[in-house]
Amino acid sequence: MASNSFGSFFRFTTWGESHGPAVGVVIDGCPARLPLTETHIQPFLDKRRPGQSSLTTQRQEADQVRILSGTFDGLTTGAPISLIIENTDQRSKDYSEIKDKFRPGHADYTYQAKYGIRDYRGGGRSSARETACRVAAGAVARQVLGDSVGIRGALVQVGAHIVDRAEWNWDEVNNNALFSPNAKAAVFWANYLEEVCKAGSSVGAVVEVHASGIPAGWGDPMYEKLDSEIARAMMSINAAKGVEIGSGFASAGLTGEMNGDEMRSGPDGKPVFLSNHAGGILGGISTGQDVVVRFALKPTSSILTPRRTIDVQGQDTEVFTKGRHDPCVGIRAVPVGEAMLACVLADAMLRQKAMG
Amino acid sequence: MASNSFGSFFRFTTWGESHGPAVGVVIDGCPARLPLTETHIQPFLDKRRPGQSSLTTQRQEADQVRILSGTFDGLTTGAPISLIIENTDQRSKDYSEIKDKFRPGHADYTYQAKYGIRDYRGGGRSSARETACRVAAGAVARQVLGDSVGIRGALVQVGAHIVDRAEWNWDEVNNNALFSPNAKAAVFWANYLEEVCKAGSSVGAVVEVHASGIPAGWGDPMYEKLDSEIARAMMSINAAKGVEIGSGFASAGLTGEMNGDEMRSGPDGKPVFLSNHAGGILGGISTGQDVVVRFALKPTSSILTPRRTIDVQGQDTEVFTKGRHDPCVGIRAVPVGEAMLACVLADAMLRQKAMG
Amino acid sequence: MASNSFGSFFRFTTWGESHGPAVGVVIDGCPARLPLTETHIQPFLDKRRPGQSSLTTQRQEADQVRILSGTFDGLTTGAPISLIIENTDQRSKDYSEIKDKFRPGHADYTYQAKYGIRDYRGGGRSSARETACRVAAGAVARQVLGDSVGIRGALVQVGAHIVDRAEWNWDEVNNNALFSPNAKAAVFWANYLEEVCKAGSSVGAVVEVHASGIPAGWGDPMYEKLDSEIARAMMSINAAKGVEIGSGFASAGLTGEMNGDEMRSGPDGKPVFLSNHAGGILGGISTGQDVVVRFALKPTSSILTPRRTIDVQGQDTEVFTKGRHDPCVGIRAVPVGEAMLACVLADAMLRQKAMG
Amino acid sequence: MASNSFGSFFRFTTWGESHGPAVGVVIDGCPARLPLTETHIQPFLDKRRPGQSSLTTQRQEADQVRILSGTFDGLTTGAPISLIIENTDQRSKDYSEIKDKFRPGHADYTYQAKYGIRDYRGGGRSSARETACRVAAGAVARQVLGDSVGIRGALVQVGAHIVDRAEWNWDEVNNNALFSPNAKAAVFWANYLEEVCKAGSSVGAVVEVHASGIPAGWGDPMYEKLDSEIARAMMSINAAKGVEIGSGFASAGLTGEMNGDEMRSGPDGKPVFLSNHAGGILGGISTGQDVVVRFALKPTSSILTPRRTIDVQGQDTEVFTKGRHDPCVGIRAVPVGEAMLACVLADAMLRQKAMG
Repeated sequence: MASNSFGSFFRFTTWGESHGPAVGVVIDGCPARLPLTETHIQPFLDKRRPGQSSLTTQRQEADQVRILSGTFDGLTTGAPISLIIENTDQRSKDYSEIKDKFRPGHADYTYQAKYGIRDYRGGGRSSARETACRVAAGAVARQVLGDSVGIRGALVQVGAHIVDRAEWNWDEVNNNALFSPNAKAAVFWANYLEEVCKAGSSVGAVVEVHASGIPAGWGDPMYEKLDSEIARAMMSINAAKGVEIGSGFASAGLTGEMNGDEMRSGPDGKPVFLSNHAGGILGGISTGQDVVVRFALKPTSSILTPRRTIDVQGQDTEVFTKGRHDPCVGIRAVPVGEAMLACVLADAMLRQKAMG
Repeated sequence: MASNSFGSFFRFTTWGESHGPAVGVVIDGCPARLPLTETHIQPFLDKRRPGQSSLTTQRQEADQVRILSGTFDGLTTGAPISLIIENTDQRSKDYSEIKDKFRPGHADYTYQAKYGIRDYRGGGRSSARETACRVAAGAVARQVLGDSVGIRGALVQVGAHIVDRAEWNWDEVNNNALFSPNAKAAVFWANYLEEVCKAGSSVGAVVEVHASGIPAGWGDPMYEKLDSEIARAMMSINAAKGVEIGSGFASAGLTGEMNGDEMRSGPDGKPVFLSNHAGGILGGISTGQDVVVRFALKPTSSILTPRRTIDVQGQDTEVFTKGRHDPCVGIRAVPVGEAMLACVLADAMLRQKAMG
Repeated sequence: MASNSFGSFFRFTTWGESHGPAVGVVIDGCPARLPLTETHIQPFLDKRRPGQSSLTTQRQEADQVRILSGTFDGLTTGAPISLIIENTDQRSKDYSEIKDKFRPGHADYTYQAKYGIRDYRGGGRSSARETACRVAAGAVARQVLGDSVGIRGALVQVGAHIVDRAEWNWDEVNNNALFSPNAKAAVFWANYLEEVCKAGSSVGAVVEVHASGIPAGWGDPMYEKLDSEIARAMMSINAAKGVEIGSGFASAGLTGEMNGDEMRSGPDGKPVFLSNHAGGILGGISTGQDVVVRFALKPTSSILTPRRTIDVQGQDTEVFTKGRHDPCVGIRAVPVGEAMLACVLADAMLRQKAMG
Repeated sequence: MASNSFGSFFRFTTWGESHGPAVGVVIDGCPARLPLTETHIQPFLDKRRPGQSSLTTQRQEADQVRILSGTFDGLTTGAPISLIIENTDQRSKDYSEIKDKFRPGHADYTYQAKYGIRDYRGGGRSSARETACRVAAGAVARQVLGDSVGIRGALVQVGAHIVDRAEWNWDEVNNNALFSPNAKAAVFWANYLEEVCKAGSSVGAVVEVHASGIPAGWGDPMYEKLDSEIARAMMSINAAKGVEIGSGFASAGLTGEMNGDEMRSGPDGKPVFLSNHAGGILGGISTGQDVVVRFALKPTSSILTPRRTIDVQGQDTEVFTKGRHDPCVGIRAVPVGEAMLACVLADAMLRQKAMG
């Protein structure tokens, strides 16, 4: 069912396994005559790239993207854009531990149950390596959206430790390896994650992404609401277990008076909203305010502690994960979340052009 | 973009406005030879129907469903199933208050921004009346899923008041008008909502839905993950602002040891899981455990308190909602959430049949 | 698989059986603020309506269309447009002859093979009655396309008798019951069909449809080429067995010099083409010339002559069709072909707006 | 709108330009555990490969396919299958003649009109080179269909010269470079095409493809009829201008008695049909007979004769095509047509599995 594709107008399809020769993405529906070279994409891949700090997996990947089609003289042509990223660090590993056993909390078991076969090397298709393709697609989506739209994300919770929003500083996000919008939280989390790492354990995280410059009117009721598409996008990210827009789950506890964002006449005829509980979306359509989304990521299941499980023959056994691993996969989910939001919005923008 | 349709294999399309002659749904992709008459659908509509207690809108609708196509001798034929529900209580109302003003927190403004026109009578297309069609489609989806799959929902939070899970009782859910799984919470919430109603205010809610009997292997990585489709489905429900699967946002605060559900060999060769933080889904594919989803609903924006807003000319003004209204739209979202989950699962079941 | 829907942006879904209470169509993706009332649709239905001459089926249907949703004050709102046409002439008939037997050349057998059940009354879902819904959708598509686009069809072959193109007159098409562009052919065909009718036989036909006013640039390579979508549309019409664009099959016999339409600079900067072998489409994209399509319809299988067949138990038997029938179903396919072309073009127009 | 993808369940997406580094295809929705290595694909590419006789373009391409993802230990895994074919013969050419001029009958003009930019080198995206990807996808589709389904094509018309069906011999097809099912026609056509080639001209062709072993019941009414999908598929092939099923356009001239294929009880309970005017499809659903499709290809527009045209500035000029070219692009369309039919049928097979 084309389950490796995302989007309807601006649509991308990813392929590739963790330990195959490469991963890649084909982007269809990108308008013509947009500037696009590798230099528009590589910086976003560099941001997601592992091995940059002690707090992410030590896999070393150059993550060099190459454009194989869809551009001419540095401009898009309207033809599908094929991007490829070679896998350079598929070290020969001993897979005997996970080849026949299912890691609790991992897709090992469900892939086996669904397909009766799985590429166990590095997680195969279910590896977070696939998210490099999302980031590449997101970079192209940003070209579609243009400069008036800004998309940026931050880590707002690591394990149980929530960032202090009173000291939120977007400029800080790129100053630390954890995409923290608060310098103190960055230090605290780094220390915390080192402990987690030493213990061979892992923790989850919450990521928040904002999009500014979205005009009112994007998104389509009823079943392709802007928030519905965002929820789908974020929940498709590896390890995601929850998504919320604006005040999200907290809005359940609010009254109508508190929750409904009041409006005043603005200088350019557009309304000024006095709050943004809606997270920029009402009735599935953008309001013109910032779109605000948060998503929760569970802790990775690849941990050093032995855990009870079964093997492919259905027999009781134990499993643990050897070697390099991420103490908090949520960190690298920040650029991935940005990319997915960019793709949803590029799609919505094109759709609105058709209907407007 | 077919935004009024949902599903790929089992696919439904809804139509109709709050104050038009009728609302309806066309279901395409329903397998042939399933028993289907109005009696399979009506009970679910009756459950969603307004006017049943003082805690939901006093609109009186018979909500009688009629099958216009797709069955023969009480069996589905594989042809599209057209269901119609007439609107019988479109009382003539004074719309002068909302005709030209945007209710804060309502889709009034965004529909106007997107389309340049809106049917303001009773909310038009953005009315919760549309959810009757979802419930009807969900009833058909249950026929597709068959008796081995059970889907049931409950209200787990009203305003800030969360249900005590220690005394959860599924049998209780149908004993009270609030779909509470806890008799004491039902009484507490009812009293609380009467106060909210008297104050002309509104509050949000959280709904939880479980599906049992789902075999391992349903759902499609990468962008049509089972949880991704569920997130999309639930976020498409009017007033929804957040969705989570299994431990959801709480899983961010867990360690890998706590979160990964351990497995033991079960009596029939299938694994027994020792917990269900995953909510029945790993890597986007069902595990065989119960699928567990929660979604948050914001308080309705139709309240008696005057609020600051602008009118269609962009001028500052105030607005309030006269007449009948729901103090907590979350209550009626319980059968709607069940229906949406049933539709997602029926679709996943058919897809898996093709691939298995 | 949503096989009862057509189009991606401008998308319609039909439902209903020949002898059910009604047939209908839901149109999703129609832009807002277009004038739309029943008066925009009814004339096209009247053109397709049976019982208007002795040469089409004597079924008497009022074919009155009713708009159930999607408009407000005579304008479209962007919400799905639900149209319903009641079946008023489902006379009680004796179905014993076809209930258990398969008419050679009819979908009786394949529906039974696919679904294991079929609504045999009047052909059920496979009845040409479904085409009323296409015509209604086509009328809405014309509103989307606007006045600058003209779509008109004609019958160009009845049985083996091909129209003389030298005397083609579009004005003549509406002067005769056969949609003939040539008055003499209209008389000849009418006499011929009366003989066919008396003999209890049937013949096929070829329909030609032109669209003018289509700018260059509509249509999407590679698999959603404008001609590809048109081919799909026309081949989906009951009894269609072939489709061709421009010179079509005849172009196989041409040389490159004969076939390639030369261009000269035109008065408004657009090219003037010196011929139109391409039928207005090159590389799947419109050239700005008239789009020209022809499709062939087989003779109806409902004839009075007994034919060898099997019954639902697989036993040899004979079958013939009693009562009213169309000697040439191709006649009524003219407005249906126009409607399908209108829908394809409305979809292409909206898509191009998004990408242009 | 994902216009570079084809299929819904078995879905492929192609990318690449004639003179880019490579062309490729990503296949999504291929069931797991099917044998698949390059050896299953390469023979079909070799059949389509240019430069094999003096009658096809002299471009020399190795057309070596490489599988980049989706298999493990020689079996498909259910993950997307990425295939890449490098372009090895993009000789440096002088494009001054076509860079700024539109070849009559070519997509040059329409791509420019649609996108405002085009990769003119070798036709860019509109080059027949893209069909290598279709052939590769078709080879995978054959693995899905399995050995019980046979798909084979032949050339049945070159220019105005139609094959004599009385001496049809499928075994002959692979004995000549023209895929002729008749040895005498092969010789005649070869001589004829040499003359065409010497004259710097080109001619069209008609291709016929048969699929055997298709059970009754595949295909989905109403708008995704099996013949509708086939028509779409064939019309998407470069240069295609017409498609017909079974007796096709000739059925317009038949009577109901002649056209309806009579049935007799067969040895295994399935009917034996006494003819196949239907081409194996009734009501959009397969009958169990061979599926028979023909499609017409226009002559290539790349000819040596100077022709009147305009340039990108809209000025009158002349154009002709230098260098290697195909006198009859229809020849290489035979394996392409086979591939497209295989893909349509693989999709239909999976869909029927879901619904059966």
